[in-house]
Amino acid sequence: MSRYLPTELIQKKKRGQAHSRDELAFLIQGFLDGAIPDYQMPAWLMAVFFRGLSQTELLELTILMRDSGRRFDFKSRGLFTVDKHSTGGVGDKTSLLVAPLVAACGGFVPMMAGRGLGHTGGTVDKLESLIGFNSAPAPEEFARQVQDIGLAIIGQTADICPADKRLYALRDVTATIDCIELISASIMSKKLAAGVQGLCMDVKYGSGAFMRSLTDATALAEQLVAVGDRSGVRVHAVISSMNQPLGRYAGNSLEVGECLDILAGRRCIENGHDFYQDTRDLSVFLAAQMLVIAGLVESASQGLERVRSALESGAALKKFQAMCGRQGVRDWEMPKPQAHLVVTSQRRGFVQGLDTEAIGFCLVRLGAGREKQGVELDLSAGIENHFRIGDAIQEGQTLWTLHGRDRPRLESVADRLRETIAWSESPVARDALIVKVIEGH
Amino acid sequence: MSRYLPTELIQKKKRGQAHSRDELAFLIQGFLDGAIPDYQMPAWLMAVFFRGLSQTELLELTILMRDSGRRFDFKSRGLFTVDKHSTGGVGDKTSLLVAPLVAACGGFVPMMAGRGLGHTGGTVDKLESLIGFNSAPAPEEFARQVQDIGLAIIGQTADICPADKRLYALRDVTATIDCIELISASIMSKKLAAGVQGLCMDVKYGSGAFMRSLTDATALAEQLVAVGDRSGVRVHAVISSMNQPLGRYAGNSLEVGECLDILAGRRCIENGHDFYQDTRDLSVFLAAQMLVIAGLVESASQGLERVRSALESGAALKKFQAMCGRQGVRDWEMPKPQAHLVVTSQRRGFVQGLDTEAIGFCLVRLGAGREKQGVELDLSAGIENHFRIGDAIQEGQTLWTLHGRDRPRLESVADRLRETIAWSESPVARDALIVKVIEGH
Repeated sequence: MSRYLPTELIQKKKRGQAHSRDELAFLIQGFLDGAIPDYQMPAWLMAVFFRGLSQTELLELTILMRDSGRRFDFKSRGLFTVDKHSTGGVGDKTSLLVAPLVAACGGFVPMMAGRGLGHTGGTVDKLESLIGFNSAPAPEEFARQVQDIGLAIIGQTADICPADKRLYALRDVTATIDCIELISASIMSKKLAAGVQGLCMDVKYGSGAFMRSLTDATALAEQLVAVGDRSGVRVHAVISSMNQPLGRYAGNSLEVGECLDILAGRRCIENGHDFYQDTRDLSVFLAAQMLVIAGLVESASQGLERVRSALESGAALKKFQAMCGRQGVRDWEMPKPQAHLVVTSQRRGFVQGLDTEAIGFCLVRLGAGREKQGVELDLSAGIENHFRIGDAIQEGQTLWTLHGRDRPRLESVADRLRETIAWSESPVARDALIVKVIEGH
Repeated sequence: MSRYLPTELIQKKKRGQAHSRDELAFLIQGFLDGAIPDYQMPAWLMAVFFRGLSQTELLELTILMRDSGRRFDFKSRGLFTVDKHSTGGVGDKTSLLVAPLVAACGGFVPMMAGRGLGHTGGTVDKLESLIGFNSAPAPEEFARQVQDIGLAIIGQTADICPADKRLYALRDVTATIDCIELISASIMSKKLAAGVQGLCMDVKYGSGAFMRSLTDATALAEQLVAVGDRSGVRVHAVISSMNQPLGRYAGNSLEVGECLDILAGRRCIENGHDFYQDTRDLSVFLAAQMLVIAGLVESASQGLERVRSALESGAALKKFQAMCGRQGVRDWEMPKPQAHLVVTSQRRGFVQGLDTEAIGFCLVRLGAGREKQGVELDLSAGIENHFRIGDAIQEGQTLWTLHGRDRPRLESVADRLRETIAWSESPVARDALIVKVIEGH
C-alpha cells in the first residue's frame, strides 16, 4: 500500500475532494493498527460530515469495513438470506415479528441485531427479557440454526466489522453519528459481513427518528439502496413514520408481550383503535418486501397474502417459538413490573404531535433503555400508549400507563411525558405509517 | 463553571450554533487539563472550520487563550506599546526594519516573533544568524529592554498562551490551520498576552501567502481588526502582495544583510530595479501606520515623513544595533555561504507570475527553512532574486543566485525553481505591493 500523510488526507476531504480506494484503506487500516492516532480520525470524520462521500467512496469504505473482521457465507450453503434492519425508533419491535413471518414463508433470516442506545430500543435487549434467551451462540451454531429453522436473532459478534465498531465508538463521542454516508457504511458493512444477500431497510423519519425530516430519511434510503446495488445486496428501503411510538407498548418485556399477542392473533381495542395495528401492519409490510427480495413471491401483494396467512395460521408463532427454544428459552418467563402509574391528561384538545425522542429518553429514565453502553436495564419497565396522534383527549383521560420496578422512577417522568404532547384546538390530520418504498435493482 | 458534555458542544458547533463564554471556557480549560480528551477537540476544530465563530465567540476564545498563561503589562509602566505581525511570506524581513524604525521615532515595540514553518521564514531564525543573538532573555529583561531602548525582538516564551500552543499543535496535524477565526484568535491572544496595545497587521495575499485570494486576506484582516476593537487593541491591517519573494534575498543571514544595507541607506540596483525597494517601501509604510496607531503622529503621511527621516538619519540603524547589542551580539558575524550557484533562464519571455509557496519550499530544501519544528537550519542558505514579475527575460539571463553550505543541495533545487515561473509572450501588468489598509476604531 502506498503511504500518505494523514493530514494530507484530512485536508483533501475538507476541501471536498474524493479519496481513492488506497487512501481509504490507509485511513481505516492505519486507524485500526494505531498508525493514525485517535486525534486525527475525528477531524476526518467531521470533514466527511460536511463534505460527504461519493458513491464510490462509500462503497469502498463499506467493503473495507466489511473485510476488517469475520465474514459469514450462506451462499455457499445454497441459501438466499434476507434480513431487515431499522434505523431505530421507540416501540419498534417489528424485527421480532418479521423474522418468524419470513421464516414461516420459507425465507432464511440471519439477523444480527443491536442493543438499545440513546432514545431507541434494541432487539437484543427485548429478546433477553425472555429468561434464558442466548443472544450470543457460537458463530457455527448461528449459521446452523438459520439453515435448520430459517431464522436466528443474535447480538453482533465481537469479530464482525471491528473497524466499524471502533469508528462508531469514536463517532459517538465526537458528534459525528448523524452522517448519512457513515450510517450507510456502518449498516451495510455489518450486513455484508453477516452474509446477508437481501435486505429490507426500515428507514424511519419523524420526531423519534435519527432522521427528523422525510428528505433526510429519503436521502439515507437512497444511499443504502445504492450501496446495496454496488455491493451485491438487493435492498428495498421502506420509509415509515416514527412520529409516535409504534404499537401499544414501549419497553423490553412489554414489547415481547405485544409480539406474542400479535403472533397469537390477538388485538388490543380501546377508544376505537386497535393499538396493535401499526406494529402488525408495518411488520407484515416489511416481511412481504423481504419475500419479494428473496424471490419467494412475484409481487408485493402476493407477499402480503403469504405473510398474512403465515400469521393467521400460527406458522409464524411456531417459528418464533422454535427460535427461542433453540436459543435457550424454556419457561417463557419474563420480568414482571412491580409498579404501575396511570398518567392522565391535565387538559383537553387534539393531539397534534409528539416529541417521540423525548418519550424515548423517558424510557431511558425508567430503566428501559441506556444512554451509554454497559448500563443494566430494568427489562420490566416501559410505557403503555392509550392514544394516537389525532385523537381528541378529555381532561382526566388516561394517556399512558407506566410500568416498572419502582414507583418513584415512574412518578419522575409523568410530567416530562405530558410535555411531549403538542396540542391543537381543532382536529388534525393523521400521517401515513408507510410513506414509500425505494427499490434496488 | 457549569458542566457540559463535550459531545453536546461539538454537536452545537456542527449545527452552526454559537457557544456561550462558559462553554468555550469549558472546552479550552478541559482541553488543557485533560478533562476533554485529545480526540474530541479535532472534531470541534473541524466543525469551527466549517461553521465559523461569531465575533463574540472569537473575542471570548481570544481572551480565554490570552489568560491561559503569563501576561505582560506595559500599560502600568506608562508605555503605549505597538507591534507589527505578518501572516507570513517568503523573504519578508520587514520586522527587522519596522521595530527599529518605530523605536527611533519614539515608539515602544515588544515583539514576540516566530520561527519559520512550512514555506515561510521566521524573524527569530533570521536574528539568530547574528552570532550571539539571544532570542530568549528572561521575561523581566524583555520588558526592561523595551522600556529602556524602545524595542526587543524575542521568541515566544513557553508560558505565553499555552492554550494556543497546544491547540496550534493539534491543528497542525488535523488540517485545521487555515481557518480565519482560529488564525485570528491565535495571533491576537499572543499579542494581548505580550502586552501589546496597538498592532499593525501585515496580511499577505497571493501565491506565497496562507490566504491565496485577496477576498480571504480581506476577511482575515477584518476579523483581526474586529477582535482588536473588542479586546482593546488598536489594529490597522495592511493588505500586501506576496505574489513574489520580498526584496533581494530570501534566507536567514542573507535577509539580515539586506536589512543592514537598507538601514545603512544602501540600494541594490540591477536591470533597472532597486531590489531593496519593496522591502524598504513596505517597512516604511508599516512603521508609519504604527506611529499613527501609537498616536505619535497625526496622519499616515506625517508618519511616513518621520519614519523616512529616522531611516535616512541613521537613527533606526542605531536602534537596531542597540537591540542586538543588548541581546548578546558582539562581533556582527554571520555564517557565510560556502557555495554559490547561478540559475539562468532556459527560455525568453515575460514573467507573468511565480509560485512563491514553491519557492519557499525550495528554501526549505536548501536548509533555510523547516517543514516541522525542531529541524536545524543552514543559516547561510538562501536565494538572491535577479528579476521581478513583469520583467522581460532573455535566454541565459540570470534568474537567481543560490547560496548555502553545499553545492549539491543548491543544484537539487535549480530546476524546481525554474518551474515556479509562469511565462507570458506579451508584457504583463505588475500588481501593487500595498493594496489597502483596514483601520480599527
